[in-house]
Amino acid sequence: MEASTMFLVKALLLVCFKVCFTLASDPDPIQDFCIPKPITFPHHHPFSTNLPCKNSSEVTTEDFVFSGLKTAGNFTETGLATVPVNPTSFPGLNTLGLSFVRADLRPGAINPPHYHPRATEVAHLVKGRVYSGFVDSNNKVYAKVMEEGEMMVYPKGLVHFQMNVGDVTATILGGLNSQSPGIQKIPSVVFGSGINEELLVKAFGLSLEQIGMLKKRFNPVMSNEH
Amino acid sequence: MEASTMFLVKALLLVCFKVCFTLASDPDPIQDFCIPKPITFPHHHPFSTNLPCKNSSEVTTEDFVFSGLKTAGNFTETGLATVPVNPTSFPGLNTLGLSFVRADLRPGAINPPHYHPRATEVAHLVKGRVYSGFVDSNNKVYAKVMEEGEMMVYPKGLVHFQMNVGDVTATILGGLNSQSPGIQKIPSVVFGSGINEELLVKAFGLSLEQIGMLKKRFNPVMSNEH
Amino acid sequence: MEASTMFLVKALLLVCFKVCFTLASDPDPIQDFCIPKPITFPHHHPFSTNLPCKNSSEVTTEDFVFSGLKTAGNFTETGLATVPVNPTSFPGLNTLGLSFVRADLRPGAINPPHYHPRATEVAHLVKGRVYSGFVDSNNKVYAKVMEEGEMMVYPKGLVHFQMNVGDVTATILGGLNSQSPGIQKIPSVVFGSGINEELLVKAFGLSLEQIGMLKKRFNPVMSNEH
Amino acid sequence: MEASTMFLVKALLLVCFKVCFTLASDPDPIQDFCIPKPITFPHHHPFSTNLPCKNSSEVTTEDFVFSGLKTAGNFTETGLATVPVNPTSFPGLNTLGLSFVRADLRPGAINPPHYHPRATEVAHLVKGRVYSGFVDSNNKVYAKVMEEGEMMVYPKGLVHFQMNVGDVTATILGGLNSQSPGIQKIPSVVFGSGINEELLVKAFGLSLEQIGMLKKRFNPVMSNEH
Amino acid sequence: MEASTMFLVKALLLVCFKVCFTLASDPDPIQDFCIPKPITFPHHHPFSTNLPCKNSSEVTTEDFVFSGLKTAGNFTETGLATVPVNPTSFPGLNTLGLSFVRADLRPGAINPPHYHPRATEVAHLVKGRVYSGFVDSNNKVYAKVMEEGEMMVYPKGLVHFQMNVGDVTATILGGLNSQSPGIQKIPSVVFGSGINEELLVKAFGLSLEQIGMLKKRFNPVMSNEH
Amino acid sequence: MEASTMFLVKALLLVCFKVCFTLASDPDPIQDFCIPKPITFPHHHPFSTNLPCKNSSEVTTEDFVFSGLKTAGNFTETGLATVPVNPTSFPGLNTLGLSFVRADLRPGAINPPHYHPRATEVAHLVKGRVYSGFVDSNNKVYAKVMEEGEMMVYPKGLVHFQMNVGDVTATILGGLNSQSPGIQKIPSVVFGSGINEELLVKAFGLSLEQIGMLKKRFNPVMSNEH
Repeated sequence: MEASTMFLVKALLLVCFKVCFTLASDPDPIQDFCIPKPITFPHHHPFSTNLPCKNSSEVTTEDFVFSGLKTAGNFTETGLATVPVNPTSFPGLNTLGLSFVRADLRPGAINPPHYHPRATEVAHLVKGRVYSGFVDSNNKVYAKVMEEGEMMVYPKGLVHFQMNVGDVTATILGGLNSQSPGIQKIPSVVFGSGINEELLVKAFGLSLEQIGMLKKRFNPVMSNEH
Repeated sequence: MEASTMFLVKALLLVCFKVCFTLASDPDPIQDFCIPKPITFPHHHPFSTNLPCKNSSEVTTEDFVFSGLKTAGNFTETGLATVPVNPTSFPGLNTLGLSFVRADLRPGAINPPHYHPRATEVAHLVKGRVYSGFVDSNNKVYAKVMEEGEMMVYPKGLVHFQMNVGDVTATILGGLNSQSPGIQKIPSVVFGSGINEELLVKAFGLSLEQIGMLKKRFNPVMSNEH
Repeated sequence: MEASTMFLVKALLLVCFKVCFTLASDPDPIQDFCIPKPITFPHHHPFSTNLPCKNSSEVTTEDFVFSGLKTAGNFTETGLATVPVNPTSFPGLNTLGLSFVRADLRPGAINPPHYHPRATEVAHLVKGRVYSGFVDSNNKVYAKVMEEGEMMVYPKGLVHFQMNVGDVTATILGGLNSQSPGIQKIPSVVFGSGINEELLVKAFGLSLEQIGMLKKRFNPVMSNEH
Repeated sequence: MEASTMFLVKALLLVCFKVCFTLASDPDPIQDFCIPKPITFPHHHPFSTNLPCKNSSEVTTEDFVFSGLKTAGNFTETGLATVPVNPTSFPGLNTLGLSFVRADLRPGAINPPHYHPRATEVAHLVKGRVYSGFVDSNNKVYAKVMEEGEMMVYPKGLVHFQMNVGDVTATILGGLNSQSPGIQKIPSVVFGSGINEELLVKAFGLSLEQIGMLKKRFNPVMSNEH
Repeated sequence: MEASTMFLVKALLLVCFKVCFTLASDPDPIQDFCIPKPITFPHHHPFSTNLPCKNSSEVTTEDFVFSGLKTAGNFTETGLATVPVNPTSFPGLNTLGLSFVRADLRPGAINPPHYHPRATEVAHLVKGRVYSGFVDSNNKVYAKVMEEGEMMVYPKGLVHFQMNVGDVTATILGGLNSQSPGIQKIPSVVFGSGINEELLVKAFGLSLEQIGMLKKRFNPVMSNEH
Repeated sequence: MEASTMFLVKALLLVCFKVCFTLASDPDPIQDFCIPKPITFPHHHPFSTNLPCKNSSEVTTEDFVFSGLKTAGNFTETGLATVPVNPTSFPGLNTLGLSFVRADLRPGAINPPHYHPRATEVAHLVKGRVYSGFVDSNNKVYAKVMEEGEMMVYPKGLVHFQMNVGDVTATILGGLNSQSPGIQKIPSVVFGSGINEELLVKAFGLSLEQIGMLKKRFNPVMSNEH
């Protein structure tokens, strides 16, 4: 097969995968499961491992098991480490309406105010002491210091946050009711995205200089702490 | 009937109204419509106008018509005036999955970064020139100056904002695909809700003093600009 | 690449676009947005501009802005002009559960009884005076003359209609809570679709001759006023 | 085209088909069932038999069984008899997303053009020969004479119709995927609901006199054939 | 209790019933229909008849009609014959949220305990006498002998079963509110799937020998009775 | 207030709670949250603590926090202990589409084959070694021994099971994407619910005596191990 054909077919597989998967809604699936099908092309392509459903004969138990939660992710310099658990890392979750995240915070570290546009989250504090909370549509905050073993629910789409107030690294396991909950980290969204400075000056009542410093701090180059 | 019975029944009607209506989901209704039923008790009660569905014999054309969009709402001192259009003000919308908002901005006024946890919004610029945009999950901003007559879509749950950059008061009509989209105004949610100051200091890299000033600016007493 | 391959790939892209997009349901998306991807083939093909999601690097602010509402559409000889606003004309709406329509009616013109199988509509009378209404499942009509600036809701799937009873061209902006609400115009559906004449004679109690005249009036050749 | 290309394209079509189709969705109750609770008051009240869920101790097998399909309903003078099967007559269906209808048509009788705003219907011709069809959003009719034992699907919200073209009374059993599909019978909705006559004259191109006769035929007093 | 209290409580029960029941929901396709597109390749491939949507110009009335219900399917040696009716056999059902099954049981034959993970089923006993029932989440069985013409509902996802207790072959037509309800036959799922024997011994309190016999009876080779 | 009124109002509150809550669907909520409202009557009633939404002024942070996961539940004699986490025990989960369960198994103990009719479950093995798996619609089992820290997904509505194959008590935390997933434990559903013995004899190929022993083992009196 010619290279140009190869390229087009490959491109097509990729866009098809994206559009097919991006159009699903989290309510009821209409099949037992759908394990995305990896494909190997001669040339390694960053996206070429994501493809449509495997035939059931190719599906194995391993597709439904995830082992990556055992240890913390890589810590950023601010002391936060996250491990996302979604269909990309755990194929069996695909089409089934659930995803997870492990977050580890060093003492004093925070998970800044953020929210998930498409899911409710329940955070289970596996280890440590963490100040945790969310804000409702009336700007009322619901927050407290959680003790080891407690759970807190952050209702769908509401801003929430966490800060390790204990002496050891804290571990939180979050469960979310969408396979793709999305995320908006407030500091990065507001100051690291390029919103017009004058609007930000007016919105926060800060000086142009202060906004400039915030934009510098959260500009896209630095915002890859995810 | 005794006063105590009266009180209980009234209380029950109110809670029933709340729970019934708060449990609906925006997907398909299973009736043509449901006009909330007002009830008049001897003593005026702030909540007593909200009740379950009217019998169809009591429903009139007026229940399906809303006239409150003709003029702007009351302007805050920052130059923003909003008129919400939802089942509370327009009963016919109840259970049907749509709501609206009219926003007027004086020259230079802004609608600060905010989002709706439960709806996509399409903003139609009826009059004026407005800088408008939103930020996606990768902190990429999509913004431009809209001219009169243009529409812009803010995808579900993503932070968006507006600023009147023209010389006249601008009028925007927003359509949302939920009867109760919810709202989180970023400055008020973050600085006006009582989130722990140390967390905010760390999240934004501002000094405790700066955070203190922001909290003062957006404290609940002042945040009733809604 | 050979022509036959080219053809197959192109055909595949087209069917994939259709099936992918036609299978989404209006409830929750699982991504921020999905801008359909245009592709240019050597030979212009009427459908070849519609394709799967753009990569986010290709998405621009313009994808989320629509400018076609500023003026009326082309008037039919009956005095009705409509501008549909959906993912085909406004790509940013794709997967987000909303669409719009601008309708202009010359004095005396009507928008005949019709309904949208997959959406509630809220009509906002931007200019003029319009008799407007809908019929519920008990054959009860809810109708009135709307004044400029008023809104009327037509519940999901119910027959509704409009007639300009003022002296100037009326402008209506309709918002609908589906990206693809569908439409069934009663006169065309019933008399312009080829339903058996005997059935129509019995259904309406008209003579075969009268039905014949109605069928002639609404036959497909003439029904392209859409 | 080479065989390898052929294979890849074919494989792609297959996986695309699988993934596209497997991502559509159906919705959910959050309990096993909910049998409406009847209550008997001293004074008979037309609505007093409809009430909230029975306690599970009061629920019996009979709540989940319906016996009313064995015989035809009452025939109208036009030769149509219908038996609706929904939570009112069959309590076990409540909250479970299905309803049914039995329709019997005397030879030559019709079920006039109508649609269900909230459901797809599948009609099973249990006995007889029936001309049956529906019209899509492009005014294209799909119709044929069904033979005993055949099924026909009428997609959600589209106008459909039936006429007994055989020599014996025909029996049709319709299944619908909503517990409350709703109904709009075109002749009654359009001519029996009180829509302004001038609008109807313009919509159908009939004379005021003809519209007057149609309105007389389908006025509410006569429309209780439901 | 006083009459006025009585009246109010009664009124409340009625409105509550109405509003509660009217708020449940059903979901949506976003197109009229989607007929899977068959394609013929030189080499016959078991899956090659399933493809994306036909263009509307290729769609015919026959796509919406199914004739395969007229006769029973092939009987297994246990006396059960089933005819599944879903998009594979009846393309018009695709995306529309309904499927069907015809089951015929010889005298004494059973349809063993099973359930559909994604649908409620309503069984209509077309002919014969059948013991039929289901079990709820509290292990309470709802069962009885159904007479010809009766319907029974099996709520979504609950185990149900049937046994012909009459003298003639019984015919049941089941309607389900998903195009792909799925099935789990308890005996085959538990004993014919390869679950660890020790676990089964403990789960059922049977001996290893008894479990071995059950596994032999329901091993995959024999389980193709579907 | 009279006792009879008291009783009726109380009864009404209870049924209203039940019907309101049982009719919600797990898709999108239309409010931030809804904390069920407890009420205290003079006489303790097992159900009287469950009521409609609290006013937001009564809602506290504690409503969104759950502390009951820290220790195992009560072990049955078979060595299984479960702690359900749903709106009854954790009010903040109400209307938000998620629930949890902690299961502890003594060495050798099992969680027998069961399924949840309304949810996908992801089991996280917090401690121990557990053989775990599920069976799909083709009776294919996906099972393995999970090591500490691993997760396994059980797709919606499919039969799954667990057995502690390690030396210490195992702890599993399950997350489910419905606030009320329901449960059907296969042994109890089939043998402990009163299904006709002859049907069971035929379904499993066991003798009447063997079925009798199984029914004795799983009869309702013993099945309260839930």
